Amino acid sequence: MPSRRIAAAAAVAAGGLLAAPALVSAQPALVWRMPSSFPKTLEALSGGAALFCRMVGEATDNRFQIRYSGPGEVVPPFQVLDAVQNGTVECCHTAAFYFTGKEPGFAFFTGMPFGMNTRHLNAWMYAGGGAELMAEFLEPYNAVPLAAGNTSAQMGGFFRRELRSVEDLRGLKFRISGLAGSVLQRLGTVPTQLPGGEIYAALERGAIDAAEWTGPYDDEKLGFHRVAPFYYYPGFMEGGALIHVLVNRERWAGLPKAYQTVLRLAAAEANHYTLAKYDAENPAALRRMVAQGAKLTAFPREILDACWREAFAMYEEMAKQNPRFARVHAPWSAFRAEQIAWSRVCEFGFDSYVYAKQGRG
Amino acid sequence: MPSRRIAAAAAVAAGGLLAAPALVSAQPALVWRMPSSFPKTLEALSGGAALFCRMVGEATDNRFQIRYSGPGEVVPPFQVLDAVQNGTVECCHTAAFYFTGKEPGFAFFTGMPFGMNTRHLNAWMYAGGGAELMAEFLEPYNAVPLAAGNTSAQMGGFFRRELRSVEDLRGLKFRISGLAGSVLQRLGTVPTQLPGGEIYAALERGAIDAAEWTGPYDDEKLGFHRVAPFYYYPGFMEGGALIHVLVNRERWAGLPKAYQTVLRLAAAEANHYTLAKYDAENPAALRRMVAQGAKLTAFPREILDACWREAFAMYEEMAKQNPRFARVHAPWSAFRAEQIAWSRVCEFGFDSYVYAKQGRG
Repeated sequence: MPSRRIAAAAAVAAGGLLAAPALVSAQPALVWRMPSSFPKTLEALSGGAALFCRMVGEATDNRFQIRYSGPGEVVPPFQVLDAVQNGTVECCHTAAFYFTGKEPGFAFFTGMPFGMNTRHLNAWMYAGGGAELMAEFLEPYNAVPLAAGNTSAQMGGFFRRELRSVEDLRGLKFRISGLAGSVLQRLGTVPTQLPGGEIYAALERGAIDAAEWTGPYDDEKLGFHRVAPFYYYPGFMEGGALIHVLVNRERWAGLPKAYQTVLRLAAAEANHYTLAKYDAENPAALRRMVAQGAKLTAFPREILDACWREAFAMYEEMAKQNPRFARVHAPWSAFRAEQIAWSRVCEFGFDSYVYAKQGRG
Repeated sequence: MPSRRIAAAAAVAAGGLLAAPALVSAQPALVWRMPSSFPKTLEALSGGAALFCRMVGEATDNRFQIRYSGPGEVVPPFQVLDAVQNGTVECCHTAAFYFTGKEPGFAFFTGMPFGMNTRHLNAWMYAGGGAELMAEFLEPYNAVPLAAGNTSAQMGGFFRRELRSVEDLRGLKFRISGLAGSVLQRLGTVPTQLPGGEIYAALERGAIDAAEWTGPYDDEKLGFHRVAPFYYYPGFMEGGALIHVLVNRERWAGLPKAYQTVLRLAAAEANHYTLAKYDAENPAALRRMVAQGAKLTAFPREILDACWREAFAMYEEMAKQNPRFARVHAPWSAFRAEQIAWSRVCEFGFDSYVYAKQGRG
């Protein structure tokens, strides 16, 4: 590639067309569009998208510009993958598990109920084979994935009524993403998937009984606690939710290697930032919501146990029926089990002691 | 900067010195040196350093090359900051807490005993004000810091004899980094700081009674378990240990903005990779070491409690005596307390349930 660029530059020089800007860089000037699935008001997610674009610009002296748009501005929030696949846009900012309607395996790459936590997901992506599996999985969708953010372990959502037993899940209309909806469906819940911007109104008018989004920082802005006060934890639906930039495959292949690397690196920075921003902002947001009447409530163990049973039974069934699901499920399960075995010793040992001690003042 | 570059390029063109390579990029061609404090055999750390260099090269079409060297090749392992400060080298790869001998505040930016875990450290660095505090702290050392790796919560080290009570810490010769040595000194331990490559021999011949390094992946290679079988956890000394690239201030200021951004982004990628590599490799390494005779042992609570008491008493004393320590201690304490309060609810709630459930099969 560099030698072709040198040749092209030399040809321009020979032709006497040597304008000053052409000298600044032999890299192509590009302007890409990146629609996002996430409302711009959610500043850890939109901030991550904006940071990604800014870093790509800065690292290339603004030769490579990516213009980020909110949901519906260019593409509806859940059609961003289609738009990347068919080349309508060059890339998008989204969460893979929004596309479990296409096939359930997408959920592995954002978050599975009782799946890997944020740390485990990153270990899988950056050094455990997860990135390679995801790239392979996305080939039929004509997309190249980059990990670009994480919400961390999410809260379990807001409920208009308290949950006392597994029976209370029956008939419950619950806005929930990814495979968690399918798990709860096995227990009688009616899952719905709504974009972030439409949840509040549905919850307020009782069209849904419950909704989960991410965690306190976003949830507070969306205001769910004002209409559904029972705020449950932990969000067993997502021990972490990895966000991605998905790039159209031909557009990716057409980039100079340097630009590919800049995209990869800018995504890594956005991944740090989005998680860090949630971590930095969640504590105070949770305190404010509790002061405003949110009732912080742990899921009854009976409910967690029922969901655990149904989740892992469902994964086994899906793996039997769906070879593409099975292809990811086996290494995902093995990696997760290893991570848990090790995390329990050292990381959890440290956290358990410090949290208990600090909690006592 | 861009306009100056255009002018320079135009001047070259006017002088008829228009060689093809000069057209490829108007960015300067640079070769920097980056000595590391860490042995090249420790592949998560050295792999992070190598990845950082490779990413900088790829993102700049190899116009900006950084040559990484192991400890002692160019600079001795614990003199890398001095070499950056006086401009002998352009940057280094190290852990800030190796320099607590200069002043104790360095430890905040790598890891304090019972301090922030890896996740909290990253939240502080990328969105909680930690990066800005570290940059300010390093001004007198003429260095600009970039977060570039983490070992995660470390193990507590290898001991030739079992620890049964706080009394057993008295007179113990312990290779340990950062402020943890000072904490243990208050309980009668004799801390020593040796580079990674010199620990095994000292432990084997009984010059030291115990040594901590990082976690199973490195520890196994260093072979400590063969001469000191009691392998303690959790490593209260470091809930996470952040690794840095430190850049000479004038060299940083002289870089084009695009190169500064590339360094920042390459460090972010190295930070992900180093942690992920440890996470991916630690589980199997721990299993192998246990099979080879390492005796996995929890620190007695009495010892943890004594260390906790001494650690926080020491931080208070240091904050009273040392304004530069105090300047970081106050925001560090506040951020840590907030992180713990929130982590206990959601992240720890998720992990507790999943780890316990998975542990039962």
